[in-house]
Amino acid sequence: MPALLAALLVAAPVAFDRQAELSKLLSTGLTDLAAYEMLYDLTTNVGHRLNGSAQGARGVAWAERQMRAIGLQNVRQIPCMVPHWVRGNIANASIAGGDRLEICALGGSVGTPRRGLEAEVVEVKSLKEAEELGPRAKGKIVFFNRPFDKSLTSTFAQYGGAVDQRGGGAIAAAKSGAIAVLVRSMTAANDDVPHTGAMRYADGVTKIPAAALGIQSAERLSRALKKGSTKVRLEMNCEKLPDVPSASVAGDIVGSENANEVIVLGGHLDSWDLGRGAHDDGAGVTQAMEAARLMIKLGMKPKRTIRIIAFQDEEFSGRGSAAYAEQASKSSEKQYAACESDAGGFMPRSFGVAKEKLERARTWEPLLQPFGIERFTQGGGGADIAPLAPLGAILFGLQPDGQRYFDYHHSRSDTIDKVNPRELEFGACAMAALAWLISEEGL
Amino acid sequence: MPALLAALLVAAPVAFDRQAELSKLLSTGLTDLAAYEMLYDLTTNVGHRLNGSAQGARGVAWAERQMRAIGLQNVRQIPCMVPHWVRGNIANASIAGGDRLEICALGGSVGTPRRGLEAEVVEVKSLKEAEELGPRAKGKIVFFNRPFDKSLTSTFAQYGGAVDQRGGGAIAAAKSGAIAVLVRSMTAANDDVPHTGAMRYADGVTKIPAAALGIQSAERLSRALKKGSTKVRLEMNCEKLPDVPSASVAGDIVGSENANEVIVLGGHLDSWDLGRGAHDDGAGVTQAMEAARLMIKLGMKPKRTIRIIAFQDEEFSGRGSAAYAEQASKSSEKQYAACESDAGGFMPRSFGVAKEKLERARTWEPLLQPFGIERFTQGGGGADIAPLAPLGAILFGLQPDGQRYFDYHHSRSDTIDKVNPRELEFGACAMAALAWLISEEGL
Repeated sequence: MPALLAALLVAAPVAFDRQAELSKLLSTGLTDLAAYEMLYDLTTNVGHRLNGSAQGARGVAWAERQMRAIGLQNVRQIPCMVPHWVRGNIANASIAGGDRLEICALGGSVGTPRRGLEAEVVEVKSLKEAEELGPRAKGKIVFFNRPFDKSLTSTFAQYGGAVDQRGGGAIAAAKSGAIAVLVRSMTAANDDVPHTGAMRYADGVTKIPAAALGIQSAERLSRALKKGSTKVRLEMNCEKLPDVPSASVAGDIVGSENANEVIVLGGHLDSWDLGRGAHDDGAGVTQAMEAARLMIKLGMKPKRTIRIIAFQDEEFSGRGSAAYAEQASKSSEKQYAACESDAGGFMPRSFGVAKEKLERARTWEPLLQPFGIERFTQGGGGADIAPLAPLGAILFGLQPDGQRYFDYHHSRSDTIDKVNPRELEFGACAMAALAWLISEEGL
Repeated sequence: MPALLAALLVAAPVAFDRQAELSKLLSTGLTDLAAYEMLYDLTTNVGHRLNGSAQGARGVAWAERQMRAIGLQNVRQIPCMVPHWVRGNIANASIAGGDRLEICALGGSVGTPRRGLEAEVVEVKSLKEAEELGPRAKGKIVFFNRPFDKSLTSTFAQYGGAVDQRGGGAIAAAKSGAIAVLVRSMTAANDDVPHTGAMRYADGVTKIPAAALGIQSAERLSRALKKGSTKVRLEMNCEKLPDVPSASVAGDIVGSENANEVIVLGGHLDSWDLGRGAHDDGAGVTQAMEAARLMIKLGMKPKRTIRIIAFQDEEFSGRGSAAYAEQASKSSEKQYAACESDAGGFMPRSFGVAKEKLERARTWEPLLQPFGIERFTQGGGGADIAPLAPLGAILFGLQPDGQRYFDYHHSRSDTIDKVNPRELEFGACAMAALAWLISEEGL
């Protein structure tokens, strides 16, 4: 018998079984569509999950209850303290004398004086430009208005090219003596919905209020400035309170052979408060849970331990992620691999993977194509699993189609009606398939 | 000099130029987002484009005006007669004694008697089952309730597995003596929005009224039937009128070297009347136009003629398509290739291509990947360009991600707010890139 034929006779049944297993996984997921059911429940009955809020606390209880309902083992909270910032009930801005601007406070911002503030506005396109204003910014509101570069195909690249204004704008402007900042929302959508998100202060630099402007509001303000000097009134009563206790939630499918080798699947439970954190990142949390539910339902018993984690505090400071990594570093377990979903519940297109296992992962591409996964690309992972890399975990990141993500991200538009049940489920099934391949075939 | 190096020195600049050209095309498209502007104008200022309606006529004028504005040459109408069916203003159904059912008339259906009809309902899952009812269907309403098979990954496969009920249900039921049919809408969406679409009658078989039921209405009716015999009242005043003149619209970028070889890019201008025909198929029409606009704007002068066609009457009987093919068959031109977009304005995933040129087309995959095109697959084309295959044209079909398509298809939900400007534009750019490669490099 020719060697090639012999090899085929041995190899083919194995390959066929794997394909049949994965096909069953996918068809079951698409029939049940349970990730959507969970996400509907989370976003409707819990709501948003802002750090420190009553809803945030309910989210922890929800995740624990849900993991038990799925049949995960060792369901437990992983405690951490989280920042507690409160948006308040006032966020108003208008061009002096009239035109109302659509704004929201950026996450972490201090409020304005009680009766608001009013000052001339100076528009810049970068942190550097803001710092170079020097005395010309004194007593003014600095307006960061560098848009997304729409010519880029990747919306994450667009975001990456603009988000320094949101994160570092208040520091750069305060250094030049400004009294507040307005930042063009981090979106390419052509609407007037403001997008919040984390901003930073620095020790020794005055903390000044920071708000995001809807895109149309940013355009109106910019047009007004082109005509002449323009004042804006700004009033916000957001505030920072002392840290509060919270927790990530984890549960396992204990491995049947190498229980000590852990494959983490996760997303983050906390969200911004303007919408309901549907795509960011209720999607990731429910996809990870659904991946486990499917394996349990189908009686798939992984050799390695598959651990579902709903991480806490991704949006502010990553303390949930740090707490798990700290715990893992002291454990005798090996963090074998981790896959995060934190780019929206849209149709999958690829998985990112750490460079050293790119070639290995590519051998699975044909098996994952029915899940919408066209390829593995170098990179990926995500903020919550990043601290596991130094512990030896190979990091993966689910990469769905990103064209719609920043239309909703961190805004009141991030609600369940923007999520398609099938697209969400494809992502959950892809994560299940990846975890299964890693568990059964090894990296 | 080693042969390989010599080959690289010759080949590399060519490949680089092609990539640079296509990259410029894509970044310009994503910056302008003009396909969306056109589609917004079409769906807002023209409306739907049902055969024979005032809006349909306005659509023809709009397409002609738009093609001239873009700078196409030889802009002209290609006349054809089209069926004229009128939905009327009454479409009511209820379970006798109360529960209102969400329905719409299927395209082409006769109306009910003026005061409606009321009859017992019998539920079936297939045409065969309806025909086998025989005398048991006499005087009754036959209810076709076979759902989409959600376990299938392709929504077009789901549709293909259910749509015979809509197309042929009235014939099968009338053969058994039924007086009307209700058909579960052709969607997997879990809502109560009815989806229309074409249905047929046969010579010698009684023409009975046919309506689509929203999914929740179908579920309610099915539950009622499980409890016992159930009557439904049905009232519709739709009607068929004599055919009316209409036209497809075409315009060219005349080729600079092989003007006689024509590459058609198109979609269909007509639509159903419940929504605004945004995804089906305003998207395809505006993508084809945008492909041409981009080439003209960027000064790309194709060797072969690129022809944009807004086809008429795809939804009922394909007369616009037939009229163009008839004209082409008598012309001295060669129909070299054709690409249709009629699967929604979603993010591109692949192009279908006729088998004989699959290997040839695959050499372009690396160039098309930035456009969202992962691969060429065998098959594709579409209803409007199908008659060009016998004339020698190689057929291509744009295949966008299809998970959301049948949530909107043929329903009042097919409106501009379901279209993402960037996703639509990626499709337009992909069509432009494909046409450019075919024109410049040949098949």
